[in-house]
Amino acid sequence: MALKNSYYERLAGGYLFPEIARRTKEFQVFHPEVKIMRLGIGNTTEPLPQIVASAMALEAVRLMNVETYSGYGDEQGNSKLRQALSERYKKCFGVRLDADEFFISDGSKCDCANISSIFSHESIIAVESPAYPVYVDSNVTSGKTGQFNKGKMQYEGVYYMPCTEMNDFFPEVPSGHVDLIYLCRPNNPTGAVAMASDLQPFVDYALEHKAVIIYDVAYVDYQKERGLVESIYQIPGAEKCAIEIGSFSKWAGFTGVRLGWSIVPKELVVEDTVPGELHRMWSRRYTTVFNGASNIAQAGGLAVLSELGQQSCQEVINYYMSNARLIKNGLYDMGLTVYGGTNAPYIWLKVPDGMSSWNFFDKLLNETNVVCTPGVGFGPDGEGFCRLSAFGHQENITEAIESIRMNLRI
Amino acid sequence: MALKNSYYERLAGGYLFPEIARRTKEFQVFHPEVKIMRLGIGNTTEPLPQIVASAMALEAVRLMNVETYSGYGDEQGNSKLRQALSERYKKCFGVRLDADEFFISDGSKCDCANISSIFSHESIIAVESPAYPVYVDSNVTSGKTGQFNKGKMQYEGVYYMPCTEMNDFFPEVPSGHVDLIYLCRPNNPTGAVAMASDLQPFVDYALEHKAVIIYDVAYVDYQKERGLVESIYQIPGAEKCAIEIGSFSKWAGFTGVRLGWSIVPKELVVEDTVPGELHRMWSRRYTTVFNGASNIAQAGGLAVLSELGQQSCQEVINYYMSNARLIKNGLYDMGLTVYGGTNAPYIWLKVPDGMSSWNFFDKLLNETNVVCTPGVGFGPDGEGFCRLSAFGHQENITEAIESIRMNLRI
Repeated sequence: MALKNSYYERLAGGYLFPEIARRTKEFQVFHPEVKIMRLGIGNTTEPLPQIVASAMALEAVRLMNVETYSGYGDEQGNSKLRQALSERYKKCFGVRLDADEFFISDGSKCDCANISSIFSHESIIAVESPAYPVYVDSNVTSGKTGQFNKGKMQYEGVYYMPCTEMNDFFPEVPSGHVDLIYLCRPNNPTGAVAMASDLQPFVDYALEHKAVIIYDVAYVDYQKERGLVESIYQIPGAEKCAIEIGSFSKWAGFTGVRLGWSIVPKELVVEDTVPGELHRMWSRRYTTVFNGASNIAQAGGLAVLSELGQQSCQEVINYYMSNARLIKNGLYDMGLTVYGGTNAPYIWLKVPDGMSSWNFFDKLLNETNVVCTPGVGFGPDGEGFCRLSAFGHQENITEAIESIRMNLRI
Repeated sequence: MALKNSYYERLAGGYLFPEIARRTKEFQVFHPEVKIMRLGIGNTTEPLPQIVASAMALEAVRLMNVETYSGYGDEQGNSKLRQALSERYKKCFGVRLDADEFFISDGSKCDCANISSIFSHESIIAVESPAYPVYVDSNVTSGKTGQFNKGKMQYEGVYYMPCTEMNDFFPEVPSGHVDLIYLCRPNNPTGAVAMASDLQPFVDYALEHKAVIIYDVAYVDYQKERGLVESIYQIPGAEKCAIEIGSFSKWAGFTGVRLGWSIVPKELVVEDTVPGELHRMWSRRYTTVFNGASNIAQAGGLAVLSELGQQSCQEVINYYMSNARLIKNGLYDMGLTVYGGTNAPYIWLKVPDGMSSWNFFDKLLNETNVVCTPGVGFGPDGEGFCRLSAFGHQENITEAIESIRMNLRI
């Protein structure tokens, strides 16, 4: 008698975004005449730069020609693309990594979910609260957590690191023992960033405890201020204790195209491994259960990494960041308390009058027809906040903020 | 102290194809003047039909335009593509499945590896021997098997179903209890197929034991003879006990583009689930840890499913199948014993003189400069065989067979 993986039963509620979609759809059914304005899911809306789209179109055309057709590539990714990423890290971030320390994936969501599979089933995970739900959910379904505690809005056995107004949304290093520490800077959802002095204690902790930091840099190109960390490997010692995960989704508009990368340095070690072993295990995972990212998407990635490609992508990012300013300033002018939005495409709004996140979601939808993302969906310390996203056409963002300004009863 | 996932240590040797690549590379280093002819990895070589490649080029161009740009799609796949697959199953195979019972992936290798994650950690798996290595390896790394027994060339705790000359390469139903049964028809590597009378006992077994059949149809479009099973759902009762996994890789030349699908019927149940529950769990897995296949690849998939697309893909398949005939007849004329190659792009060659698969691999490479795939890499009962692949340009296939004919010392 086959049995299901019963860990799935531990997953609390629906996954955040499908639940938002469900409530929004329900609202639309009852109010078919209303134009809903979405500041919820962080989905890119602006077209790809010509150099990037045409590189992919050209690659598709090359597949039509017997001389230029290509089938399976290396599972770990096109070697030119890995080399180009290695060069970008050196030139832009001052970080030296071999090309084969980069692994090309079909997007960072998969990497964030799969990375814990090379570590022991007994690993204790630590996550920021709030955080991108994938870090916890992937460990719930693989049995690395306990049951969901509805009172605390937490999974048993997971170490939550509160990111609150009190600590400027940057967590303290764990006081007890943990094995895998997920950090995301610039942060989704709070928009908070990291300086070297913030991250050094985490690297020191990881080295001392033989823990591993899983560092998500999906939004790093949205950082505008100087002196912020761009790669965990800018912190001395991180190459021995940290994995970095990056994405073309928000950097280059590849949310639908699907492309990302992970870095597992050869020097990375845990208690029972020698240098190189975890790197080989991750490589083995790629060759054993994955067949590479789409060749067309990888051709697009190479174009993104060209000089003109990087410039063009930066222009789109600047556009989204002007949206972020519109949202942040608009809400601030209404007297609301807002964070983020300066070095990240997310604005972290403190819900007024001590309402819950989901009640505010419903209120915002009903009164202003604007969809936000309830902060509690990102973890217990997200309660009382909601996330607004700067991804959208400027005229729609302007219209949404105007609707909030005119119609929100606070 | 973090620890590694020690199940990785159980993986026997390198993954088959990287090991072939290593030996081939080594040979080339010592014989730089030699032209190596590859009949090893089943990698497509012929260009995409124009209708398919241009649909993808067009989709890339659409991403350059603000009106037609698209970001995240549904994680489970484009609804039009799911609908088109549902219609193909109905029209071509006489199988009725709802569009939302199809899940679009980035290729069947990932689905084959991930599917067991929705079942209990205690599941006992059964595999054909020989079989595509991913079925076993994915269960080794997730701890669903025991140690590798070098003497038996088997993992402890796995039920191997021998596919040999004695049973025409179709296995008996398990005599003991198993939970997840992996079957692949037409078979990789033996090229053997299935009739309804072959599969009905497996479906009966699965229904009786509440086991699940995971049925891989990656090569179904290579079947030429009539009366062969094209989908497991042609067998009465299969919708309650079987999952089917399909691929655009060999059907439409998408080995590099990456696109596949899985079918988890709503009626599928195991011991501790109600109808719909496993379907919802698989859907939950998609939404939680995956972000959809590339939108460009999915546009290509839709073109494949058009009438002209299906015809055009069939022409490429016919080309490969004429290669298969060349290989099969060439080897047969030399007095060698060969199987497969009639309804599948693989020829299963019985190694002469009782040699081992890897010794024959080395002999073939040294004497004829042809690369094959050692049968033992597919499981213990593959020992004494090797797989030859019909994927290649016809002139190269002809040259390889000529070299074998002239140079192989048997």
